[in-house]
Amino acid sequence: MYTIINKNVIPLKSGNVRHGLRIDDEEFDGFGEIYFSEVKKGCIKGWKRHSVMVVNLLPVTGDFAVQIKKDFNDKPHKIFFGENDYKLLRIEPNIWFAFEGLGSKNIIANVASIPHDPNEAETIEYGEIT
Amino acid sequence: MYTIINKNVIPLKSGNVRHGLRIDDEEFDGFGEIYFSEVKKGCIKGWKRHSVMVVNLLPVTGDFAVQIKKDFNDKPHKIFFGENDYKLLRIEPNIWFAFEGLGSKNIIANVASIPHDPNEAETIEYGEIT
Repeated sequence: MYTIINKNVIPLKSGNVRHGLRIDDEEFDGFGEIYFSEVKKGCIKGWKRHSVMVVNLLPVTGDFAVQIKKDFNDKPHKIFFGENDYKLLRIEPNIWFAFEGLGSKNIIANVASIPHDPNEAETIEYGEIT
Repeated sequence: MYTIINKNVIPLKSGNVRHGLRIDDEEFDGFGEIYFSEVKKGCIKGWKRHSVMVVNLLPVTGDFAVQIKKDFNDKPHKIFFGENDYKLLRIEPNIWFAFEGLGSKNIIANVASIPHDPNEAETIEYGEIT
């Protein structure tokens, strides 16, 4: 369903370097696109589900709560991560997820295994009655 | 030497989405690795030169001045970009570059065409007498 992978943070006086994803990483499933999504404090983006894309989420700045569930009516798993609790969250296809901004400024990267394709993506507004 | 490419910013009430790089972009030269580099205000990272890697810099948060030059003794070109002046800066191999953080918090992404390899990377400390 999902995997959490620790990623190296190299401390430097001029500013840390944080590893993201490499083609020789075990969890690498191909590269399609990278994009950055800001999530204002208290806002939730999702629910989203992809039938093909593997989603690789990296918290570039801020803090996030990500909710993940297999069936829409399941109780979601809740994963917390952020700039100071830095890791990669890899979400498999056919999984619902939603992410909430917890910090004052929150920007998450998605290193997606395929480019965005509306034909393989579903969205249900968070809070929408189904 | 380098190319500046405008990238879409999709405005959303919950937080903007900023496009990075896609495999079907004209400027795409392969994917090797993505990493994030924080640059504290007033700090400069560089000079760096890669003999193989194409460097794709994206300003995720904050503002940056990037200096670029072909020969080490050349007067550098200076490029400004940032979160609110969002674009992709693609730097070809065999070019010296250095980047400075101008905002209160600055994090830049490098979508590198090959994984980091010390054998193809040179560094000369900024300000070092050569």
